[in-house]
Amino acid sequence: MAHKYSLTDDQVPRHWYNIAADLPSMPPPPLHPGTGQPLGPDDLAPLFPMALIGQEVSAERMIPIPDPVRDVLAMWRPTPLYRADKLEAALGTDCRIFYKYEGVSPAGSHKPNTAIPQAWYNQQEGVTRIATETGAGQWGSALSFAGAQFGLEIKVYQVRASYDAKPYRRAMIETWGGEVVASPSPDTNAGRAILETDPGCPGSLGIAISEAVEDAATRDDTKYALGSVLNHVLMHQTVIGQEAQEQLRALDAYPDVVVGCVGGGSNFAGIAFPFLADKIAGRDIRVVAAEPAACPTLTRGHYGYDFGDTAQLTPLLPMHTLGHGFIPAPIHSGGLRYHGAAPLVSHLLNLGLIEAVAYPQRECFAEAVRFARTEGIIPAPEPTHAIRAVIAEVERAKEEGVVKTILFNLCGHGNFDLTAYDAYFAGTMEDIELPEAELDEAAKALEGMPAIA
Amino acid sequence: MAHKYSLTDDQVPRHWYNIAADLPSMPPPPLHPGTGQPLGPDDLAPLFPMALIGQEVSAERMIPIPDPVRDVLAMWRPTPLYRADKLEAALGTDCRIFYKYEGVSPAGSHKPNTAIPQAWYNQQEGVTRIATETGAGQWGSALSFAGAQFGLEIKVYQVRASYDAKPYRRAMIETWGGEVVASPSPDTNAGRAILETDPGCPGSLGIAISEAVEDAATRDDTKYALGSVLNHVLMHQTVIGQEAQEQLRALDAYPDVVVGCVGGGSNFAGIAFPFLADKIAGRDIRVVAAEPAACPTLTRGHYGYDFGDTAQLTPLLPMHTLGHGFIPAPIHSGGLRYHGAAPLVSHLLNLGLIEAVAYPQRECFAEAVRFARTEGIIPAPEPTHAIRAVIAEVERAKEEGVVKTILFNLCGHGNFDLTAYDAYFAGTMEDIELPEAELDEAAKALEGMPAIA
Repeated sequence: MAHKYSLTDDQVPRHWYNIAADLPSMPPPPLHPGTGQPLGPDDLAPLFPMALIGQEVSAERMIPIPDPVRDVLAMWRPTPLYRADKLEAALGTDCRIFYKYEGVSPAGSHKPNTAIPQAWYNQQEGVTRIATETGAGQWGSALSFAGAQFGLEIKVYQVRASYDAKPYRRAMIETWGGEVVASPSPDTNAGRAILETDPGCPGSLGIAISEAVEDAATRDDTKYALGSVLNHVLMHQTVIGQEAQEQLRALDAYPDVVVGCVGGGSNFAGIAFPFLADKIAGRDIRVVAAEPAACPTLTRGHYGYDFGDTAQLTPLLPMHTLGHGFIPAPIHSGGLRYHGAAPLVSHLLNLGLIEAVAYPQRECFAEAVRFARTEGIIPAPEPTHAIRAVIAEVERAKEEGVVKTILFNLCGHGNFDLTAYDAYFAGTMEDIELPEAELDEAAKALEGMPAIA
Repeated sequence: MAHKYSLTDDQVPRHWYNIAADLPSMPPPPLHPGTGQPLGPDDLAPLFPMALIGQEVSAERMIPIPDPVRDVLAMWRPTPLYRADKLEAALGTDCRIFYKYEGVSPAGSHKPNTAIPQAWYNQQEGVTRIATETGAGQWGSALSFAGAQFGLEIKVYQVRASYDAKPYRRAMIETWGGEVVASPSPDTNAGRAILETDPGCPGSLGIAISEAVEDAATRDDTKYALGSVLNHVLMHQTVIGQEAQEQLRALDAYPDVVVGCVGGGSNFAGIAFPFLADKIAGRDIRVVAAEPAACPTLTRGHYGYDFGDTAQLTPLLPMHTLGHGFIPAPIHSGGLRYHGAAPLVSHLLNLGLIEAVAYPQRECFAEAVRFARTEGIIPAPEPTHAIRAVIAEVERAKEEGVVKTILFNLCGHGNFDLTAYDAYFAGTMEDIELPEAELDEAAKALEGMPAIA
């Protein structure tokens, strides 16, 4: 029987954990795309409120969560920790598998953990409107929910392919009061330019980011919000790992391995960073990032400075990247289809503090179905990669003749992605490995970028 | 800020509350459709395991929840109780509004509360397969989830209109391992007979029940399961109201009014019956059942014996009913489209222990949108009726110049029903009041039925 371990309502964490304070070295700084110089707060001010810019560069180890933010997080937090007893039994393993479940949030994923503070800090600084992009729809709906909580207008540029294929996510955004348009849209210069040459363009996350950034940069009442990649976004997710530590402490348990899936890196950071603090302090623990074989930024990407978007409007970030022009294959894990990985996550990989693995989607869904039929929760496509990696750890423990405690982040439910399960059962789901030639193509996109010192 | 009040994991109720033990009089007995005589346990044995037949007629006040059942319920129970602070603020009322949220279950509604015990009792008596029907898909998915937990095969006859319109619910059933066919189906005599004369028949809940009952009655390995209406099903839902009582006790609060929406009556019973125990014992409290104007069984139906299904295969139940031949208009609240109301709920209305109100759907969705934008949770179409009734109570309190404490059951989330919100925003949602002529038609269907003594 899957066992749930809950905390009490007053055990919502009171601080975010800032891993920058504990790192043996810092990642290279983001650069201004025009000057090639390290970015200053003023460069970011048109896009973000000062409080978030401050968090982006903070060296404070623990940053207090403001009470109004914590009050909203407490609507669904602390989230449950589960012991996967039934999955363990189905696997015939003595390993102990725990998972943190973020699907209990109103938007169904971990995304509101950062949408809420981002909306609040904007509101505090007089911002009345936020523009953002969304691919799979998770982030757009989370920010729309957050906007409603603090009385902000939200404008979401949703990748057209997703806008057309996922009408439920669009309806969710609108129900919370957000405005959503298919991207490329006629609402921005970036969008209009693309529509003129390619009226049927299905869009991409890179294009949608360009539109949202332009929207924010050209309107006084509007800022921009990003759902992953940036330091402050990853930090907002650390409530997940902090709660997991508290829950495991009550069980007198500690993980040998911590697993999360990586797109931009935020849910991975959320579960992993608090445990990495212990690893940096000397604890013997492995931390594994699981990504899709179709978009293998950490396992096969190049490390270097790259743009966060297609139109080259964002700062240059030091990332493991497949190139800002890379369009990932249309796998079902929309949230993992991003060309780069967060600078902090990329840096941790370089430091050897985390490992990365990549899996094609069919074996991930095979494990997700087993998970649903034992544990009872139908996973979103993204965390199926984490589940696949957990199974690999169980197999490895068996080979090594050891018993391990494994923790992973089930970052969202699959209610909006059941067509993916349909495709899996129908046998029409394809395994896509990124061809070597495309990798070479991606490398070319990085030529001429500033070198990392 | 919406405030959540959680119980601890060990506070999942240990008993179901059986309201039959407290009623001043019992509802008339179900009758055998052939003989017109009260039904005996042997009549039900082909369809239900003996343990559930025992619960159906039990006079015990508190019935212990078996540990293996309670263990699975504990996956998502106790569910949170929320204080609707933000909704109250938006309404400008001093009334206190609380709601119990059942959308945190894996299937997204209250239905697993009874699916789990039903599956377990069947498994204990050697049953290996259960047949059932589903309209909106809530019940079919809940039973499929429950079947996976206890290793039972599940066969779901899903109303064709719903099967075609709600592919996500079908995919959910299959992901948990259940088999699902569109009803009318070629798999039963009842289905084949209808398909022969009407190959494009969109189906109805009454037809799907006929198919599932036939399936169970004609196979030794198979029993039938119903998601509402019957006494034992309503009783399994009383964990909701018991938890709410515990949660309100900790807040030193008690409701003046308890509200739930009614289709068959199970989520209403779940929240209301434990409070009705107090009312029967003399406590001054009102209990309100909210139903759709398009299917107004309690407010406009006739009270009498009627079949539970279209093909007249089920026992005769004493219900407020619109007639077993009644096909409700295609409102978005699929779960409220049933021609009758549970015998216990019907009886409570006759006793004056509960009140009933009916609302057309547009004003329900208007309130649901306000709820989503304040409280953050997007309601399923069914509980939008409960929310509408709560707003009426707030208005009434204002007129009376009093301050009330109101409790309602938010029995599920709207993740699978966002097309309904789309229709609401697009202005294409229709208000449907049952025409008087159809009511007369329904009355005719009851002619010749046994009289209630």
